[in-house]
Amino acid sequence: MTDNRIFNFNAGPAALPLKVLKEIQASFLNFDNSGMSITEISHRSSYFDKVINSAVERTKRLLKLDDSFHVLFIQGGASLQFAMAPMNFLSGDDVADFVNTGTWSTKAIKEAGIVKKNYKVVASSEDKDFSYIPKDILFSKGAKYVHLTSNNTIKGTQYHQFPDTNNVPIVCDMSSDIFSRPLDMSKFGMIYAGAQKNLGPSGTCMVIIRKDFMETANKNLPSMLSYATYAQKNSMYNTPPCFGIYTIDLVLKWIEEEMGSLEKMEAFNVKKAGILYDFIGSSDFYRTTAREDSRSLMNVTFRLPSEELEVKFVKQAMEKGLGGLKGHRSVGGCRASIYNATTIEGVEALVAFMASFEKENK
Amino acid sequence: MTDNRIFNFNAGPAALPLKVLKEIQASFLNFDNSGMSITEISHRSSYFDKVINSAVERTKRLLKLDDSFHVLFIQGGASLQFAMAPMNFLSGDDVADFVNTGTWSTKAIKEAGIVKKNYKVVASSEDKDFSYIPKDILFSKGAKYVHLTSNNTIKGTQYHQFPDTNNVPIVCDMSSDIFSRPLDMSKFGMIYAGAQKNLGPSGTCMVIIRKDFMETANKNLPSMLSYATYAQKNSMYNTPPCFGIYTIDLVLKWIEEEMGSLEKMEAFNVKKAGILYDFIGSSDFYRTTAREDSRSLMNVTFRLPSEELEVKFVKQAMEKGLGGLKGHRSVGGCRASIYNATTIEGVEALVAFMASFEKENK
Repeated sequence: MTDNRIFNFNAGPAALPLKVLKEIQASFLNFDNSGMSITEISHRSSYFDKVINSAVERTKRLLKLDDSFHVLFIQGGASLQFAMAPMNFLSGDDVADFVNTGTWSTKAIKEAGIVKKNYKVVASSEDKDFSYIPKDILFSKGAKYVHLTSNNTIKGTQYHQFPDTNNVPIVCDMSSDIFSRPLDMSKFGMIYAGAQKNLGPSGTCMVIIRKDFMETANKNLPSMLSYATYAQKNSMYNTPPCFGIYTIDLVLKWIEEEMGSLEKMEAFNVKKAGILYDFIGSSDFYRTTAREDSRSLMNVTFRLPSEELEVKFVKQAMEKGLGGLKGHRSVGGCRASIYNATTIEGVEALVAFMASFEKENK
Repeated sequence: MTDNRIFNFNAGPAALPLKVLKEIQASFLNFDNSGMSITEISHRSSYFDKVINSAVERTKRLLKLDDSFHVLFIQGGASLQFAMAPMNFLSGDDVADFVNTGTWSTKAIKEAGIVKKNYKVVASSEDKDFSYIPKDILFSKGAKYVHLTSNNTIKGTQYHQFPDTNNVPIVCDMSSDIFSRPLDMSKFGMIYAGAQKNLGPSGTCMVIIRKDFMETANKNLPSMLSYATYAQKNSMYNTPPCFGIYTIDLVLKWIEEEMGSLEKMEAFNVKKAGILYDFIGSSDFYRTTAREDSRSLMNVTFRLPSEELEVKFVKQAMEKGLGGLKGHRSVGGCRASIYNATTIEGVEALVAFMASFEKENK
C-alpha cells in the first residue's frame, strides 16, 4: 500500500477508507475555511450543523428511511445501548426476547438483567459454540421487543435474513455490519452501531429509532440515558462527539460517491468475502469455524492445523504488512475482518500470503 | 495567525494548541509507524496501551497524584456524570450537598433529582443572577459528598479557593478549568471534566476518583454506568474513545513540555486574563458581569452599552479573525473564553480590537 500503510484486518477499531483519512488530514488545521480544526469548532455553529445534518441525511438516503425514524448519535458504544434499551423500553411486566449468538448478545442479556427487567432468551447457538445463527425461533407473544446481534465479530457469524417476529419490533446491535448491505427497516424498532467498524472512529454510536417505538419509552430517566433527549435536540443536548460524527459523514459520503448504493456496497463485500471463503474452501490446511449458512461477510474466522502454526501465521503476516489477523483473545485462532473499507487488493494480498504460508508449512 | 487560522475564543469545543494539531495531522495516516491511522488501531494493541498509559501518567504527574486515585476516561461528557455520580454514590438515606452556581450546577442538581436520590442545595448565587461564588456555606453534617462546579462558563465565575467541607469529599465538575492551575486533591473524592475545553476534542470525559471513595459506590449498576467497571479495565471494558484519549495525551505533553508545570500554566492564565480584565476595568464602554472576587480566568464575560453594539462587536471581531465572542445563547452579551491553549498574542489582538471598536462606537 501507499504511505507505508499496512493492509488492516483489525476487528475494530478498523480500517477506514484512505480517501476519508486524507480528507481529514488535509483540512485538519482549517475545517471548511473556518480557520479552526474540526476539533475546535463549536457544536452550536453553522459549520457543525452542516456536518451533523449531512450525516443524518446520508444515513436516511442510504438506508431509504422516511421521516418515521430518528437518526441519533450517542456516546458510550454499543455497550451502553445494552443497558439503555431495557431502561427505555421495559417497564412493569414488559418482556423482551433475546437471541444469544455469542459474546455481544450475552453481554446485552447480562445488562438487561442488571437493569432488573424481564427478559427471555428464546434461542441460543451456545450448544455448538456459537458457530451458527438459530432458525425457526419461537418468539414470545406480546413481547415488547426482540433483541438480536446481526453480525458476530468473534465467532464470524451473521444473519443473512432477519427472522419473522410476528410484528414485534426488533432491536438490533448492528455494530459490525451496518451499511454493509441494504436493510429493510420495517422489521426494526431500533438499530444501533458503535462506529468503529464500518462507520468511523470509536466513541460514537449511531442509533436509528422508529418514532412510534420511541414514544413508548419510559419517562423520567436521566437525560443522557433517554432516547427522547437526543431526538429532541438533534443529538446535541450536550456537546456531541463532533470529530466522530464528522468522520461518519465522510465515510457515508465515500459510500454514496465511491460505491453508489448499499446494493453495490453489498456486492463489493460479497466479492471480497467470496475470494477468502473460496480459497479457504479449496484448502485442507485452513478451515473456517462458522457453519456455512451462517458465515459472516465481515469477519472471516478460521483455524490452522495447530496453535503454533497460528502464532507463526499471524507473526509472518504482520511482517508482510498484513495486520490484525489474530482471533479474539477469548477464542484464539485467526480472523480477517473485512469491513466496507477493506480493499479487494488487501484481500488478494492476504490470500496470496495464505497460499504461500500453506505451501511452506504443510 | 498562520495557516489562515483565526484567534478562537470559543467556549467549547475550543482552541487546542497548534503544535498538538500539527502533530495529529502529520501522523494521521501512519500513527507511530503502525501503518495505520490513530482512528484505525486496535484499542487492545501495544500502540494504544502506550497512549492511554501515557495520558494517565501525565495526568498523575501534573496533578501530583499518588496511587490512591484512578484516572478514567468515560464517554457521555460531564452531562452523563451529573447522573452517574448520584447513581454510584447515593443509596438509602445518603444525602449529597449541592452548591448552585449556574446552568451546569443546576443541571447536575436536576439529574440527581431524576435519579430520585436525596440532595440538598446548601448554597446558591441565583439571587444575583449567578454573578458570584457563594462563601461561608453551611454544609450538611454527614453528607456523602458535596457537589461543586469549579468554573462557570456561562456567567464567568470561578472558585479561587475551594470551601472547607468538614472532610466531606467534594465531587467537582472541572470541565472548564481542569489543568489550568495546580490542585490540592486532598479535598476531592472525584473530579470530572469533559475534554472539549482544556483537554482535547469533545466525546471524552476525564474522571479522577479516589480509590477509597470509589469503594463506597453502589454495586449492580449497568456496567457502563459504574466507575468500578472503568477502574478495573484501565477504561477499556469496551472500546474507548481512542482519538480523544490520544489528543488528551498530546495536550498534556504540551503542558509538560511547553509550559513545564501547572504552576506555570496558572501564571500564564493569570497573565492572559489580567490583560483582558485590566483593559475592561480601564474602560467605561465595556463592563464585566461577574463580581470581582469571583471572576473566571477561563471565561471573561462582558457587556457593551447596548445589545445592538454587542451584535456589531461580535460581527466585526469575526471579520478581523477573532471568533467565538458571542455570549452563551441563554444570557447574551459577550464572552472571551481563554483556556490554556489561547495565546497571549490572541488576547492582545482582542484587546487591540476592543480598543478600536470602543473609539469608533463611543
